[in-house]
Amino acid sequence: MKHFSREDIKKLPSLERRALVNGIAGVKSLNLLGTISEEGKYNLAVFNSIVHIGSQPPMLGFILRPTTVERHTYDNMISTKKFTVNQVNTSIYKQAHQTAANYEQGISEFDEAGLTPQILQPYDVPFVQESKIKLACEYNNEYFIQENGCRLIIANIIDIYADEQIIEKNGFVNHDRAETSGAIGLDAYVSLKLLDRLDYARPQQEIKSILTDGTS
Amino acid sequence: MKHFSREDIKKLPSLERRALVNGIAGVKSLNLLGTISEEGKYNLAVFNSIVHIGSQPPMLGFILRPTTVERHTYDNMISTKKFTVNQVNTSIYKQAHQTAANYEQGISEFDEAGLTPQILQPYDVPFVQESKIKLACEYNNEYFIQENGCRLIIANIIDIYADEQIIEKNGFVNHDRAETSGAIGLDAYVSLKLLDRLDYARPQQEIKSILTDGTS
Repeated sequence: MKHFSREDIKKLPSLERRALVNGIAGVKSLNLLGTISEEGKYNLAVFNSIVHIGSQPPMLGFILRPTTVERHTYDNMISTKKFTVNQVNTSIYKQAHQTAANYEQGISEFDEAGLTPQILQPYDVPFVQESKIKLACEYNNEYFIQENGCRLIIANIIDIYADEQIIEKNGFVNHDRAETSGAIGLDAYVSLKLLDRLDYARPQQEIKSILTDGTS
Repeated sequence: MKHFSREDIKKLPSLERRALVNGIAGVKSLNLLGTISEEGKYNLAVFNSIVHIGSQPPMLGFILRPTTVERHTYDNMISTKKFTVNQVNTSIYKQAHQTAANYEQGISEFDEAGLTPQILQPYDVPFVQESKIKLACEYNNEYFIQENGCRLIIANIIDIYADEQIIEKNGFVNHDRAETSGAIGLDAYVSLKLLDRLDYARPQQEIKSILTDGTS
């Protein structure tokens, strides 16, 4: 078994340390955040830190890196309050990765990465046409993480749009069928295969599969 | 395209709403958190909300549901400050799911779910022997999310243990080789397949694959 102590980790070269720590806790969700500036310019950026916050009311959160460099997504979100969350699927993970390049303010990552802005009324903030799941969200609050200057952004989910057949009757989101991609560390992309769905766990009771063919 | 407005979401039956909102943003990391009570009893619980916080110093975070019901993991973490994070792989996702059953305080989910506690010196808090990646962590801080009573827990990563061959020379954590499992929504489990690793993205530059055979 390999072992890295905290001292070992601190002494690693920067890129190696970042890859190790960023990747160690498993797979990460992968989404493109779309925003619009006050001047009407589109911005698109890949995020791999979205977490579920609550369903009543529907909210999500994500971690924003320190704002010591330009953060176009954050600036736009603060000024317009609106943003979109767009699924990265296995057909567009390369384009999603390219949005992370350091483009100047005013340059649209849609154009540069080769993704198509889509307008869904009544929003003027752009969605990603190629995504099979899209959310309209509203900035709600933020918590400054004093340990390293990151922020946890809390947002309200206002609208959910998804291709037919992805959301099953019981609310299950079939990301296998949606060909949703996930991320590992700084630079790796994975596909997902549904293994099982399991019944509510109870003490002293056998675990039962509740996997259906998805049409029920 | 299916559309759910915020009003539609609010009106869904509880389980359907939870499945939809919890699953909508993609795949989630999946880990077992091990703790020990002041009386020396082991506790193990599955968490699917771990996010990367930072690599210098190495930290992770996770979302804790409101503490209006008993939260053994949280109580133990607050009293001893130590906990372990253990990878869920495709061989143990059913056991991981079973740890979510509502066992009484003092009952070890290791025994009930069929997982093996492992002690790694100098810790007395238990790791999961069946996991191929294990972290020793220390509670650092928490942020109360006033919007719904959840907490963001911030923890220091103190030690990383991993099977040989999982962590490549450049720090890349090969979760495909580690057979790491991910979660969707409340009850679904997925396996991962590595699609690609991509070079650092730069404006006006073609995206290059940097995927190797993992031995370099």
